[in-house]
Amino acid sequence: YLTGGLSMSIPDPKHREALIKLETSMQTGGQLVLNDAERRLDSLLFTMKQNEIVRPDFPPTMHFFKARHLIRTSPIFTLLKKMPKGGALHVHDFSMVDVEWLVKNVTYRSQCYICVTDKQSIRFIFSSQLPKPLPHCSPWTLLENLRAKMINITDLDNSIMGNLTLFTDEDPETVYPSQDVVWDRFEQTFLALWGLVTYAPVFRDYYYQGLTQFYMDNVMYLELRALLPELYELDGSTHDAAWTLKTYQNVTRQFTADHPDFYGTRIIFTVHRGVNITTMKGVVEKAVKLRRDFPDVMAGFDLVGREDRGRPLWYFREALSLPKNVILPFFFHAGETDLEGTEVDQNLLDALLFNTSRIGHGFALPRHPVAKNISRKRGVALEVCPISNQVLKLVNDMRNHPAAALMSENHPMVISSDDPAMFGACGLSYDFYEAFVGFGGLRSNLGTLKQLAMNSIKYSSLTPEQQKKALALWQRRWDEFVSNNAF
Amino acid sequence: YLTGGLSMSIPDPKHREALIKLETSMQTGGQLVLNDAERRLDSLLFTMKQNEIVRPDFPPTMHFFKARHLIRTSPIFTLLKKMPKGGALHVHDFSMVDVEWLVKNVTYRSQCYICVTDKQSIRFIFSSQLPKPLPHCSPWTLLENLRAKMINITDLDNSIMGNLTLFTDEDPETVYPSQDVVWDRFEQTFLALWGLVTYAPVFRDYYYQGLTQFYMDNVMYLELRALLPELYELDGSTHDAAWTLKTYQNVTRQFTADHPDFYGTRIIFTVHRGVNITTMKGVVEKAVKLRRDFPDVMAGFDLVGREDRGRPLWYFREALSLPKNVILPFFFHAGETDLEGTEVDQNLLDALLFNTSRIGHGFALPRHPVAKNISRKRGVALEVCPISNQVLKLVNDMRNHPAAALMSENHPMVISSDDPAMFGACGLSYDFYEAFVGFGGLRSNLGTLKQLAMNSIKYSSLTPEQQKKALALWQRRWDEFVSNNAF
Ligand SMILES: [Zn+2]
Ligand SMILES: [Zn+2]
Repeated sequence: YLTGGLSMSIPDPKHREALIKLETSMQTGGQLVLNDAERRLDSLLFTMKQNEIVRPDFPPTMHFFKARHLIRTSPIFTLLKKMPKGGALHVHDFSMVDVEWLVKNVTYRSQCYICVTDKQSIRFIFSSQLPKPLPHCSPWTLLENLRAKMINITDLDNSIMGNLTLFTDEDPETVYPSQDVVWDRFEQTFLALWGLVTYAPVFRDYYYQGLTQFYMDNVMYLELRALLPELYELDGSTHDAAWTLKTYQNVTRQFTADHPDFYGTRIIFTVHRGVNITTMKGVVEKAVKLRRDFPDVMAGFDLVGREDRGRPLWYFREALSLPKNVILPFFFHAGETDLEGTEVDQNLLDALLFNTSRIGHGFALPRHPVAKNISRKRGVALEVCPISNQVLKLVNDMRNHPAAALMSENHPMVISSDDPAMFGACGLSYDFYEAFVGFGGLRSNLGTLKQLAMNSIKYSSLTPEQQKKALALWQRRWDEFVSNNAF
Repeated sequence: YLTGGLSMSIPDPKHREALIKLETSMQTGGQLVLNDAERRLDSLLFTMKQNEIVRPDFPPTMHFFKARHLIRTSPIFTLLKKMPKGGALHVHDFSMVDVEWLVKNVTYRSQCYICVTDKQSIRFIFSSQLPKPLPHCSPWTLLENLRAKMINITDLDNSIMGNLTLFTDEDPETVYPSQDVVWDRFEQTFLALWGLVTYAPVFRDYYYQGLTQFYMDNVMYLELRALLPELYELDGSTHDAAWTLKTYQNVTRQFTADHPDFYGTRIIFTVHRGVNITTMKGVVEKAVKLRRDFPDVMAGFDLVGREDRGRPLWYFREALSLPKNVILPFFFHAGETDLEGTEVDQNLLDALLFNTSRIGHGFALPRHPVAKNISRKRGVALEVCPISNQVLKLVNDMRNHPAAALMSENHPMVISSDDPAMFGACGLSYDFYEAFVGFGGLRSNLGTLKQLAMNSIKYSSLTPEQQKKALALWQRRWDEFVSNNAF
């Protein structure tokens, strides 16, 4: 069994050292050569990690709802917040802004009606007159009247807030014992905020506020998955999807004018995977049209909603097949599941067969070696959203997240936050923390962070020209960040 | 973006089918061609799995302590128990036999003394006279006297039983909130049963009973990790390690004489990784001598104890380096950790550099692409012990176990049970259940099971000649099993 060496079989320490270095160089960012300042910052980060990893309450091992206050006081997190993270490539339209803003700003606007459903969820609508009652819902009440009658408005506001997010101070395992329960609450929460955010004036402010929060978190670019719903006005009149898309375009222009170092937003038009084939055909046609009419702002198309309960991509294959000369890039959610060998579990392969530009989540990818090879060879990046996967109960301990192994072999990926407001997160920094400290352990380093940030530009839907410009913008901010924090 | 096809870009369904088949063929057992009867049994298994997977209380998602009674009533488990599983290659000496046997049989033997430690653990000793008191322990009491005074003996016996296993009916998350707590209890439990099982007459019976339980679970061969402690007699006299090894040899001969279709046992001599370098050198010398004197029964050498708190392999590199002409195969535990980038996390690579024959656990392997490549190329199999990893808090949901991905790419591996009695398991069937249903989902099939069983012979320490014989023995049993259960 034992070979090599002269008389003793001790492994050659130099060979060992070389293999360890080889492995480190294989991870995400392992090929980057850091400059002096970066190396100093990297040493600092390593020391911080050593301190973090010996904590008995090591945050990546805990549910995010319990870990959040610990992460907030972590010096690593403080650095990550300041770090220019590039783009957020997987964020949904109505979970960009923290719910406190929704309650304290939006629900305090005039003409806001509220009702309570049979299942104790809430619904909102803005209206110039008393709206028609909703089925399975109490009569509408004007929120300002309700507040006027209340002694403790804080309780009411907290209760509304609790209805608009999954985040809770209670034990998350008790509140959400199963995937079914947490997804059900997820969908109810979504319906609860629907009436607030689809009111045209709120929609504009919400999106501007969303951009602000990502910008404050040092995110410079967004690819937003958007349902492009019909927005409504106080008199009940509505606007079409193109109007919604134009509104995104206008508000983005306004925001970049106000903040010249923000690069912009592109929209990935999404539809719920619960629709039937006929509807899907119509939606795809609409997407093609929008893409033709708004090529700058429209990046492509995707399906949303719980994969495990929804129809698989292959079910929609005809609707998703387009004439050769039609351009509609896909950005499919796929593999957000822990079922193995089911029809839904083929979504990863099918997304790739439909030439998806990226994969939303791809949690199941390591169990699909063929899909994994294709994704790697073609450079189809995974949009990894650690906190989302944990809250929606695909994984408990972040160190067991499948992306930890993928990151150790530099699989194409970006880090994103999916629905930060829903999870009590904000921007990208919390998810970067989980990826950097949880997936990476002591091994990931400043190079990993740098590569992840650069990946978010490299794997974006921007043209090569635009990427060059965005990368230059990011590089300036990065150099500043490094020189301000390396000692 | 969209290419291929004549006018529409729909992916070719035949190409898709071929890729799905390719992926299925890449998993463990994916290359095996099943005969008619095997295919019928496979269909049956698939239906069973479909029923199992829709259960709201799907066992692989739950802690084994809560899942055990559900698994017991699963028709898949009933089949797995009957299935000839080949060898158990990762089992420790003093956790082979269920604790009920220890209490009801062993502690009822005469001259059995008990004491209670400061930390409310218990200790035992057999002695012809009152033994000297232990430090930090109550005075010794003769157990038969204690029982004579008791009104409720069942309570006493249950309490003893609870001290000899980690298994509990209470909520395991509450009882064992952290790795530190569960490992501490693990070590206390081990000390508690030490005085029982190292008493020479009990030792023989314990081992024979252990073989019986594995045999009843349709395991035909064992590689037992054994500390080879000095066994004691009633008068306090002791025997040396060679005597213990000979005892294993004799009892094994007796057992195979009584059960001719049991192939045998080989011993992997183990030492706790807490020892210092000088001690380690002595132990390795002893191991070399035992291997030379008992080449048939001695398979090799390994270190045991919690990796995260112990010394890394590289610390012992001199002690583990042997002259070229000396043969001592290693079977190192490595990568039983979720720390990443620490010194202990190098154990996987170091085990391979020391030419380990197999890897105990290898839980961290997917995060180590270099080590993973070496293990694959050299055919160094992982001994995957799902329930052990879950109870010792490396993973919650079995579907997230890293071996699920490894199994989908046919990485060299065997399934074993580590310390079944400690975890309330028995033989290999519970661990096979977790691997087959949890790791494999709907995709793993009868071929997977067959390959895993054959792997346990292929990756054993048996010579090619012996493997051929063992495989023939197994094949007969397998064909019987298939024809008895395929309809
Ligand atoms: Zn999403
Ligand atoms: Zn072990």
